[in-house]
Amino acid sequence: MRNIIAAVCIQCGEAHEAGDHTYTCKKCGSVLDIKYDYEYIKSRLTKEKLASRNDYSMWRYKELLPVEEGSVLTPLRIGWSPLYKVDRLGKQLGLTNLYIKDDGQNPTASLKDRASGIAVVRARQAGMSVVACSSTGNAASSLAGSAAAMGLTSFIFVPERAPKGKVAQLMIFGAHVVSVKGTYEDTFRLSAEAIEKWGWYNRNAAINPYLLEGKKTVSLEIAEQLGFKAPDYVAVSVGDGCTIAGVWKGFKDLYEIGFIDKLPKLISVQASGCCPINRALETGKPIEWMEENTIADSIAVGVPRNGEKALRGVRESQGITVNVSDEEIFEAMRILGAACGIFGEPAGVTGTAGLKKAADQGLIPKDAVVVSIVTGNGLKDAASAQSAAGEPMHIPPDMGLLLEEFKKRNLIK
Amino acid sequence: MRNIIAAVCIQCGEAHEAGDHTYTCKKCGSVLDIKYDYEYIKSRLTKEKLASRNDYSMWRYKELLPVEEGSVLTPLRIGWSPLYKVDRLGKQLGLTNLYIKDDGQNPTASLKDRASGIAVVRARQAGMSVVACSSTGNAASSLAGSAAAMGLTSFIFVPERAPKGKVAQLMIFGAHVVSVKGTYEDTFRLSAEAIEKWGWYNRNAAINPYLLEGKKTVSLEIAEQLGFKAPDYVAVSVGDGCTIAGVWKGFKDLYEIGFIDKLPKLISVQASGCCPINRALETGKPIEWMEENTIADSIAVGVPRNGEKALRGVRESQGITVNVSDEEIFEAMRILGAACGIFGEPAGVTGTAGLKKAADQGLIPKDAVVVSIVTGNGLKDAASAQSAAGEPMHIPPDMGLLLEEFKKRNLIK
Repeated sequence: MRNIIAAVCIQCGEAHEAGDHTYTCKKCGSVLDIKYDYEYIKSRLTKEKLASRNDYSMWRYKELLPVEEGSVLTPLRIGWSPLYKVDRLGKQLGLTNLYIKDDGQNPTASLKDRASGIAVVRARQAGMSVVACSSTGNAASSLAGSAAAMGLTSFIFVPERAPKGKVAQLMIFGAHVVSVKGTYEDTFRLSAEAIEKWGWYNRNAAINPYLLEGKKTVSLEIAEQLGFKAPDYVAVSVGDGCTIAGVWKGFKDLYEIGFIDKLPKLISVQASGCCPINRALETGKPIEWMEENTIADSIAVGVPRNGEKALRGVRESQGITVNVSDEEIFEAMRILGAACGIFGEPAGVTGTAGLKKAADQGLIPKDAVVVSIVTGNGLKDAASAQSAAGEPMHIPPDMGLLLEEFKKRNLIK
Repeated sequence: MRNIIAAVCIQCGEAHEAGDHTYTCKKCGSVLDIKYDYEYIKSRLTKEKLASRNDYSMWRYKELLPVEEGSVLTPLRIGWSPLYKVDRLGKQLGLTNLYIKDDGQNPTASLKDRASGIAVVRARQAGMSVVACSSTGNAASSLAGSAAAMGLTSFIFVPERAPKGKVAQLMIFGAHVVSVKGTYEDTFRLSAEAIEKWGWYNRNAAINPYLLEGKKTVSLEIAEQLGFKAPDYVAVSVGDGCTIAGVWKGFKDLYEIGFIDKLPKLISVQASGCCPINRALETGKPIEWMEENTIADSIAVGVPRNGEKALRGVRESQGITVNVSDEEIFEAMRILGAACGIFGEPAGVTGTAGLKKAADQGLIPKDAVVVSIVTGNGLKDAASAQSAAGEPMHIPPDMGLLLEEFKKRNLIK
């Protein structure tokens, strides 16, 4: 790929050729980062050229992506999710320039579609017909969906706690699903062994350095949707660390090619019950294992596989960390729903929960341009939505009883 | 509205002024149809003008919609759902030009968003702050979502059998939800009484003639996405009758303004367990009550409130009827998932199930251009997805056991 220089180890700096099966560093085993030839990209991509494109999907940024020119792209419409200016929610949070990027509007209803889109295109480019991953759910269903749309076979490893709706979704996509009786860590290990043994294409985001390049498209879109002005803050839910690292990479790319003239500060939000990345950021110590104790299953990652990239991104951005309780996550689901008409899953709204907390504590200037990314749709986890929302009124079909109930709840005078 | 001539009764032909609170015919009580001034619209809208628009949502067709110029539009990105050419599925069905319009990609994950978008814009235009409807689920969540995004209050009446995921979704949107212990018919009646009593804006699609105008945008998009060539066939799931009538209206509008030069044939698909509209089409007798006996809850409507418009549309199009079993619906979920990466709810894929049946019976020419509309996302009804998909493999984190299981299932040699 002419636009890529190398896959460089983030620990020891060793440069690797960016090949089909380049995963971790051959020298020290750490994760790799894809380095682009920004001068070349600048000669191929201008804001004007972008503005003239009709392709409203992640592939509109192909000059900045690790795919060969002329590759068969995934047919699903991934990306170009809506960016909403949400003034009523902004008022509640005391922010006058608040935006929500609703990435639950992707084909399989989460931001992970952006990474899986890259995975299936690269698998096909490499002539492979089987793709695999382990996931708490969203990476899984996104890979299964993208694989089905591309005509590839998928093997998916999920921990047994994954919500049933998510598992059903990927079964419907025709994936071979292995529900592992253990933690996410157990699941990850078993998938890694199986991928090694059978030589499948590896879509584990922490191992495969190309996937983060898909995730970064969320930032490319945010910047373009804001007229190539970078926001002041971007709030992101953090689990494995790949998403926030991808968010950071997207803005950095745009900065390098001169499309934006400053970089945002990242707000790294984790669940209090599982926050190893934020703990490392706060204490300055290395990332250490933590229990996975939160309702936000998609970010309940006790051993973050891409923690180092996340740490670097947040630090480089001079960002902040916020940890939130499950109740604060439920509250974020309710305020996003009632004030914006946006329905997010617990992990999907954790970024917004953290933003609210940071705003309440006065950590965000009132007039800052703030984007909170909702990373997954609430329909994925109906049980949590029910916990957050409570019960409806149950009434027989009778106006008298309805009137009584409404009066009891002060809905009418 | 300068583009509208009148709201005309489909039974007695009485013309009414198309006002804020024009619902059913004042003379005979039947449903109304919005009549446009096509000459005026032709003078305002050309294909070229449309092509130059950046608004990729249902509002790109505002000249053909019942909203005042300069109205505050719903901020949610409704419409412009993807139209996928699905060659692998086409091959399975013996069709060489098959497309799926995935309307489960709307903000609240169903086609109903198109109708609710119209409802909240018109409610606000009329200076009203409360909107209400009865629904088996999708109209409900779409109204609750659009109302929240517009800052309106919503009251929603759902029958108690509505899937919990759908109810949770609308509770999260801050709606006041009444779960009625009874059938859809009971629910509809109670909502009608309450709407009458408290003077709320009425979003019952069979009563409010403007809502169908929102639904028709799905056809406007299909035609535009096909380069203003009308398909030969369009397959649609049918419950209340509003959606298929809206689909027909959209193509008729485009034909009237000269954007397409022929009209498609409609394939009206109902569940065998609840098919009063198809029965009327097949026997030539009036629509009569039927039990609501199908897994496809969104189209389980024993007393279709807009049946007459549906009958007229299907007949005028020289269309066909197909009834499908719940097992055929599950099969459609699986083939859409595995061949296309599209996850639909049972009612959402019923059109595709019927198309498959019709194709298997040789009723559709092999090279016909066929569009099947998937009207709702499978995530809305995880229980049905589980029924359709079955169970994953349950394995402890152990390679030996994994190998054994894979061998048992013939997944490896």
